[in-house]
Amino acid sequence: MTAGDNVAAVPGPSLDAFNASVRLRLDIAYDGTEFAGWAVQPGQRTVQGVLQSALAAVLRLDAVALTVAGRTDAGVHATGQVAHCDVPADHWSEVADSILRRLAGVLPADVRVRSARVTSTDFDARFAARWRRYEYRISDASTGVDPLRRAFVLDYRRALDVTAMNDAAAQLVGLNDFVAFCKRREEASTIRQVQVFEVVRQDTEIVVRIQADAFCHSMVRSLVGALIAVGEGRRPVDWPGTLLNATERANDVMVAAPHGLTLVEVDYPPDEELTARTAQTRARR
Amino acid sequence: MTAGDNVAAVPGPSLDAFNASVRLRLDIAYDGTEFAGWAVQPGQRTVQGVLQSALAAVLRLDAVALTVAGRTDAGVHATGQVAHCDVPADHWSEVADSILRRLAGVLPADVRVRSARVTSTDFDARFAARWRRYEYRISDASTGVDPLRRAFVLDYRRALDVTAMNDAAAQLVGLNDFVAFCKRREEASTIRQVQVFEVVRQDTEIVVRIQADAFCHSMVRSLVGALIAVGEGRRPVDWPGTLLNATERANDVMVAAPHGLTLVEVDYPPDEELTARTAQTRARR
Repeated sequence: MTAGDNVAAVPGPSLDAFNASVRLRLDIAYDGTEFAGWAVQPGQRTVQGVLQSALAAVLRLDAVALTVAGRTDAGVHATGQVAHCDVPADHWSEVADSILRRLAGVLPADVRVRSARVTSTDFDARFAARWRRYEYRISDASTGVDPLRRAFVLDYRRALDVTAMNDAAAQLVGLNDFVAFCKRREEASTIRQVQVFEVVRQDTEIVVRIQADAFCHSMVRSLVGALIAVGEGRRPVDWPGTLLNATERANDVMVAAPHGLTLVEVDYPPDEELTARTAQTRARR
Repeated sequence: MTAGDNVAAVPGPSLDAFNASVRLRLDIAYDGTEFAGWAVQPGQRTVQGVLQSALAAVLRLDAVALTVAGRTDAGVHATGQVAHCDVPADHWSEVADSILRRLAGVLPADVRVRSARVTSTDFDARFAARWRRYEYRISDASTGVDPLRRAFVLDYRRALDVTAMNDAAAQLVGLNDFVAFCKRREEASTIRQVQVFEVVRQDTEIVVRIQADAFCHSMVRSLVGALIAVGEGRRPVDWPGTLLNATERANDVMVAAPHGLTLVEVDYPPDEELTARTAQTRARR
């Protein structure tokens, strides 16, 4: 077909094929240090902005719009971020075999697309997710954090009681209202299902692992701030749990610095359950 | 004693005690990215320069002179660097219990002293070392290196045959003249005892491990450059081994970029063997 053809004369199926779009699932990793977070903001260097520009260039499109599983804040990292976008099928097929190499060539070194593949149109990176898992890393060595890890680990320098932190975390597992730990942005629910919340010492680092159906804004970093207060002995082990009874944000919870936080995994149901999962999530939030 | 006292009148033992020095062993880690290498150079930010200033400040001395196990190049990292220095015993005793915390307070975040302790005056960080171990890390993923690891891993992007690289490395183990892989700086020997030289794939990274009694300048990075040529199929497996017959530096050996290289460990004999080891090393080099 050339530009001069009468498009209206093309039979239905061909026109459909020409206009058809495919949904792509992207698995993404980034060092958040030099990004103003995931979400596009005017005049700021954001992960979404950098990725959308690279995808548009590689797919020869004017623009690409990404929907993401976890809108990470400025300075937060990701090894297992997931996003989706819809692109014209013919543009995709031209680069399907080489897209990762092409993206590696145009993306800056602090963000990588680890995989890009066509997925079900029922797949929604945000609403179909069953759970997100984050890790927050802390060094409590009085000598300071390992210099090769300092971009990804909080340098705390005061001894922390990991057992007390882990006991406090255990009291927050379950379906609870985390309003005390959330920066409210809208009339959204702050009720979340925390499935895993544990603290372990791993070599020279303390690792806080948390998995939930979803997180409200600043929730992980506020929870970590509360655990640090327990670990240092400034607050009793029961204190973070008592905050589940709060009806507004707790002003005495420190929000831990962003660079210790990494989004490590997002989980989705099998394809046949995607539609049901998306509908269920949209209804709740 | 005040400035006005007649020092000559102080009895011998007290004067000795006043002047006595202790030898300190320091275990050091650094991210080499923003350093112009270990060795002090005028107008450059070097690990030695930064550490000597910090030690002088903490020990209240005009200057401290460090002797190091491995003079790493610009951009090379260390997790297991070792150095020694001699300092007045009374200055040491004042800060002995708090020196790591104090150093952590004055050092920049890209260099840390992991331990500092009094050692035998027979200990020599350079000449008493039995062996040094380095690791060189390479990513051959076509999608590019993990963004959270990019400061410490070479981003190669072309598939490398790790088995071929490991077979080539095995041919270089032993007491050999590594002149083909050395930048000669003086009339020094280029004969070295390579004890371990192996290549393994570890998750998404290729790790080259090499251990030798010592290394001449640029030796590890030249050896890695030769292995990469083998891994990519540009050179046969036997090629690096044949270079052991060379009598001068091989111009066709690429020197791999510094940021993939880390000094991970230096080994010393037990105290009672230190003097013999130092004498032996000095005689040979």
